[in-house]
Amino acid sequence: METNIERVKRDLYTISQYNRTPGEGYTRFSYSPEDAKTREYLMKEFINFGLKVTVDAVGNIRARLEGMDSDAPVIMSGSHIDTVLHGGMFDGLVGTIGALEVVRTIIENKIKTKNPIEVVIFSEEEGSNFGSTTVGSKAMIGKYGVEDIKELKTNEGISMYEVVKNFGLEPEKIVDYVLKPEEIKAMIELHIEQSVVLDLENIPIGIVEAIAGIESYEIVLTGVSNHAGATPMHLRHDPMAAAAKVITAIERIAKESNSFSTVGTVGKIICEPNIFNVIPGRVLFTLDARDVNPKGIEELVQGTEKILNEVVQTYGITASMKRISESKVVEIPSEIVHIIEESADELGILYKRMNSGAVHDACILAEITDVGMIFVPSINGCSHVPEEKTGFTNIKIGCDLLLNTILKLTTRVN
Amino acid sequence: METNIERVKRDLYTISQYNRTPGEGYTRFSYSPEDAKTREYLMKEFINFGLKVTVDAVGNIRARLEGMDSDAPVIMSGSHIDTVLHGGMFDGLVGTIGALEVVRTIIENKIKTKNPIEVVIFSEEEGSNFGSTTVGSKAMIGKYGVEDIKELKTNEGISMYEVVKNFGLEPEKIVDYVLKPEEIKAMIELHIEQSVVLDLENIPIGIVEAIAGIESYEIVLTGVSNHAGATPMHLRHDPMAAAAKVITAIERIAKESNSFSTVGTVGKIICEPNIFNVIPGRVLFTLDARDVNPKGIEELVQGTEKILNEVVQTYGITASMKRISESKVVEIPSEIVHIIEESADELGILYKRMNSGAVHDACILAEITDVGMIFVPSINGCSHVPEEKTGFTNIKIGCDLLLNTILKLTTRVN
Repeated sequence: METNIERVKRDLYTISQYNRTPGEGYTRFSYSPEDAKTREYLMKEFINFGLKVTVDAVGNIRARLEGMDSDAPVIMSGSHIDTVLHGGMFDGLVGTIGALEVVRTIIENKIKTKNPIEVVIFSEEEGSNFGSTTVGSKAMIGKYGVEDIKELKTNEGISMYEVVKNFGLEPEKIVDYVLKPEEIKAMIELHIEQSVVLDLENIPIGIVEAIAGIESYEIVLTGVSNHAGATPMHLRHDPMAAAAKVITAIERIAKESNSFSTVGTVGKIICEPNIFNVIPGRVLFTLDARDVNPKGIEELVQGTEKILNEVVQTYGITASMKRISESKVVEIPSEIVHIIEESADELGILYKRMNSGAVHDACILAEITDVGMIFVPSINGCSHVPEEKTGFTNIKIGCDLLLNTILKLTTRVN
Repeated sequence: METNIERVKRDLYTISQYNRTPGEGYTRFSYSPEDAKTREYLMKEFINFGLKVTVDAVGNIRARLEGMDSDAPVIMSGSHIDTVLHGGMFDGLVGTIGALEVVRTIIENKIKTKNPIEVVIFSEEEGSNFGSTTVGSKAMIGKYGVEDIKELKTNEGISMYEVVKNFGLEPEKIVDYVLKPEEIKAMIELHIEQSVVLDLENIPIGIVEAIAGIESYEIVLTGVSNHAGATPMHLRHDPMAAAAKVITAIERIAKESNSFSTVGTVGKIICEPNIFNVIPGRVLFTLDARDVNPKGIEELVQGTEKILNEVVQTYGITASMKRISESKVVEIPSEIVHIIEESADELGILYKRMNSGAVHDACILAEITDVGMIFVPSINGCSHVPEEKTGFTNIKIGCDLLLNTILKLTTRVN
């Protein structure tokens, strides 16, 4: 029994046409006309295959294949269908269509399972509309309520509440759709890796053991802006020179960390007044610290604080460091990892245990149930860009592994 | 014989009222209504004192006190009256009013000189309108012609030619007003130091020996933008981490330079896409390298190129380095330095020989005549900011020294 990659390919290409920026990557925000077309396409497919579809108050879709024991907790699989601006055609979609294909295959092969199986599609995973990620999954588990989505706003100041309502949903009913822990047994998400590890090592499957925690900070160094020509080097209080020292230290600490999985990124910098012949007066930059080992994050954050104290002294400047976001490390239960490994071994699939540096909807579901993640390779590690690509051979391997894993998690009756 | 500081104070405060941004520093661009009011005020003063005034094709003003030998080359002194956006009330104005006060004092004391003396006011020194500095002095010596000022544009795309024409001038006549080398004997500019050296050492006068040359560069590092979580440290091509290494090296090379006067500044940085959880793909930053010793600039630029080559290798990125501006070192003739020193000694003024890191109109005039510069202290080294300040006691010392120097340069007859 195998999944049908031609059908997966057809779905991926069809949905990719629902794209606001043809020729410049793929742009399909939640609650947009492109999103509506995608939902319409998938809804037809769900109904054709006899699945029972529920759309919740913020647009999360659950398409249910009933089990032999309809009271048994559900096995969920899926991902998201929204993209970043000018993103790729695989992020999110591979896991969504993969789950659909698994269910189609089970139905066509007339397999009966004890537990119900649901294809799940989470709204607003990328944060493209409101600057906040995994909003759909947070609403699904009751972590976000009506008040939260009233506070989330687009750059134009329109609340998620309004946007969702205009999309024809009933956001005030969030609480009616909350998924309770006893209703779900596990959630398995197939996803592209979004990094180069699998592609470089030529391994088709990554079995995720842990998803990195994140701490992000905004660091502001304030010195004394002055004339770039008239101010001798020893009389400067230059926050840019100081920032360079801190950025170099962040890279060094992350690289030399005892935890091999620590990453530290300075992705944003804003200099004032930002004129080539003026010594800057203020430099703001960010630190994004991640690790599957909380000690690695701690080491990087404390190391950054230490070097900040040093540059404050050396340069006679002031510094502030403010946390702007945080999410905890998610450990994938070892039973789930084992089940996915067993499935891979049975199918003769080469795999690698690995960590996820990125956050996914599965991290949110982990707060109420056991989750697992299966990665397929991203060619050259490209993601969130038009060049994002995963070979269909590997997508098929991922779908087959997802199928086998889900059949192991439910109890196959016939 | 002394200058009258009360009169200087009155002029400075009156002109400072001609300000587009009251309460937020001083903003007086060339060719603005505030500039027009300043000109009107000064013109009255020139005429009251019987000076012969010429306004050239781009608005440079020359107010002439005739000498006993009207064919003798002129001794000029002056500066500019324009400011940067939200600048201070002393930059430019001190040297302009100082020169006026010197001429007023000479007239009131009925001193006759062999050479004519002119108060000169240069237009558009700061580059506030068209992004190009010392435009007035360049036009005065014939370095800039009509075509050049047609090419200089405001951010709104209006040419300097149009702006000057709308101000009531005849820009096409630039060539008619060009100052010939044989018409001038020397130009002495009094100016605020714009740095902390004199203030820190509590010395009222700086006698400039050399004005630093400048080479400015735009450096672009291009790496690979990627997910900040999913990309391990050893697989990154991060242009921000590389830029930090280069910026640190620039500071180190400038500080350790064999030439004590080398300064290197990174005043501008632009990161793309500039999102906290994305490894940057491209970082642009600038290098402003200055020294009164050309070897210091060479060492800094070559050192930067070397470290760029290193980070290109280490990070697997690409780099470009493009020169965006250049001006040569100006050596003040030793006879001029000596005359200013003699004048200071006669008046019992404490002084320090020093260099200018900033470029002034005097640098441009140096192409056709002997120039000298006298600095007065900037409190805390502040300049181009609302807090810019020079004590009136020091301004008086500067004016008296300028008076004595000019009398030495011309030949006092009576």
